[in-house]
Amino acid sequence: MGRSEFNVLCIGNAIVDVITRVDDEFITRHGLVRGSMRLIDERQAETLYAEMGQAVEVSGGSAANTAAGLASLGSRVAYFGKVKEDQLGAIFRHDMRSQGVVFDTPAAVTGPATARSFILVTGDGERTMNTYLGACVNFSMMDIDKAMVEAAEVTYMEGYLWDRPEAKDAFKLASQLSRAAGRKTALTLSDSFCVERHRDSFLELIRGGIDIVFANEAELKSLYQTTDFDAALKKISGDCSIAVITRSEKGCVVVAEGRLHESPAFPVSRVVDVTGAGDLFAAGFLHGFTAGRPLHECARIGSMAAAEVISHIGARPEVNLQSHAIQLGLL
Amino acid sequence: MGRSEFNVLCIGNAIVDVITRVDDEFITRHGLVRGSMRLIDERQAETLYAEMGQAVEVSGGSAANTAAGLASLGSRVAYFGKVKEDQLGAIFRHDMRSQGVVFDTPAAVTGPATARSFILVTGDGERTMNTYLGACVNFSMMDIDKAMVEAAEVTYMEGYLWDRPEAKDAFKLASQLSRAAGRKTALTLSDSFCVERHRDSFLELIRGGIDIVFANEAELKSLYQTTDFDAALKKISGDCSIAVITRSEKGCVVVAEGRLHESPAFPVSRVVDVTGAGDLFAAGFLHGFTAGRPLHECARIGSMAAAEVISHIGARPEVNLQSHAIQLGLL
Repeated sequence: MGRSEFNVLCIGNAIVDVITRVDDEFITRHGLVRGSMRLIDERQAETLYAEMGQAVEVSGGSAANTAAGLASLGSRVAYFGKVKEDQLGAIFRHDMRSQGVVFDTPAAVTGPATARSFILVTGDGERTMNTYLGACVNFSMMDIDKAMVEAAEVTYMEGYLWDRPEAKDAFKLASQLSRAAGRKTALTLSDSFCVERHRDSFLELIRGGIDIVFANEAELKSLYQTTDFDAALKKISGDCSIAVITRSEKGCVVVAEGRLHESPAFPVSRVVDVTGAGDLFAAGFLHGFTAGRPLHECARIGSMAAAEVISHIGARPEVNLQSHAIQLGLL
Repeated sequence: MGRSEFNVLCIGNAIVDVITRVDDEFITRHGLVRGSMRLIDERQAETLYAEMGQAVEVSGGSAANTAAGLASLGSRVAYFGKVKEDQLGAIFRHDMRSQGVVFDTPAAVTGPATARSFILVTGDGERTMNTYLGACVNFSMMDIDKAMVEAAEVTYMEGYLWDRPEAKDAFKLASQLSRAAGRKTALTLSDSFCVERHRDSFLELIRGGIDIVFANEAELKSLYQTTDFDAALKKISGDCSIAVITRSEKGCVVVAEGRLHESPAFPVSRVVDVTGAGDLFAAGFLHGFTAGRPLHECARIGSMAAAEVISHIGARPEVNLQSHAIQLGLL
């Protein structure tokens, strides 16, 4: 195993977020589940958009947000994901590259448009996501660049990829290539409904060889079908080397080699939009991890990055996270 | 003159803003003039975008922002402007209609893409705009719907339209139709460099029959080529019925029938992005004006709307301005 060209390679659905504020009544009227992500088709996307107020467009996508966060922290990062050759695709690519992320997956020239997630933010900062996968359905094993996977210290993948069979195959290929090259693999469970849809194959994958698993409390409980947090924690510690569990304002818990590390949440004066909290936590954690920091420091950098992103609209950092972390004495 | 179907019809360049934060050095290095708007071609747009960091996309355009503000205040509003039939064009149309603005100008099916303005926001909230007019160059007299002009109590136009001969002709046609129908016309001078480019024809137009002129201090001084504010004020009061001059933190001055009304600025805790301040001031003023409010109240509503829009990124209101104004005791 040679020196790694990239600290982290992120793989996920390439999505532009369409963010608007709504009242609770809008969520109820549309029968949505607050805080969750649901997949919608093109017709549903058009209907929902027509009923939404004025919006802001900003690049998103779970693993893409993590990639942007890592780059902002100073990591060397690559990204695989599929946009279409259209205006939103060009915006997505610009935003990745402008942060210094290497993103060369070819855009689709035919087929559905670049993916959009209609994100409804309520008064308390909670977000409810409605994702039209669009061009992401064209992401496949063909998009896994073997040399880049082998050159990355960690390959990080989002559970949302599991929602499409072609992306799932790409995901599996990437994790096999990474392990064969003596590198590490990481997975985020993404969403408790996503875990519901794919519980058995997630467990099989994790047990078959994912080194680091990121999850929030709800996702972890859903994975092991239990309401007992400690029992779930014990189970996941037997299934992977490092489990990183985020618990919103309660901070996070890292379990590694049977040892438990707890870390408090970072203070936030006002939560504006929680979109990207988990993604940026993973960015901070992985930045510390690939820099060889102890786990409690990795968690601290993750909490800092999450705190920045929930203090404003959008799931990408608004400040340079490296400078921010240095100011805070974290780097 | 019958009852008006619309309080205000706004006509302007239909633009999507691409907003990013930069440091002062970026402005200097690109030889830009802080606080101004410059026109750029497609090649310059590509070069600048490649050098810009991660951005946020949000519908903009001076008169379009005014239309959105008026609708948010509860006015009945229509808009004429030209987008292309592309993703950014669809976003622009959605954002207008979702505020309740009637916007039916057909999109161009061929030719350049929907216009973009690359807005560079520095630490102090000042913005420097670089506008690629794109599809706006296809806006012409053909897009002036006579019946709608006749149905609008006030037709409000942005000076930026003057930068293209076809748009200038459309502008003149609209003002003639409005006056012939016994309605009122309003013009914003838009930008001091825009005034430099079109001083003589602006003066000719105003003297030929614009009822309400909006300008900031720099634009007013440029119009009359003087550094003496009071002298310029005296001159404009002879050239139009109502002149509304904004002076940033110094508030505004309204001159009507020889009488001068001064109004203080509205308090703002932190200026984040001044983009849209003038546009939203005009929205508030015209809302009050078409509701028959006295001029000092019109100015007060304008100041309130401007204060809201400079407290966040983007040139469209983030809250419902009608509710906001009611809470503040202004409506």
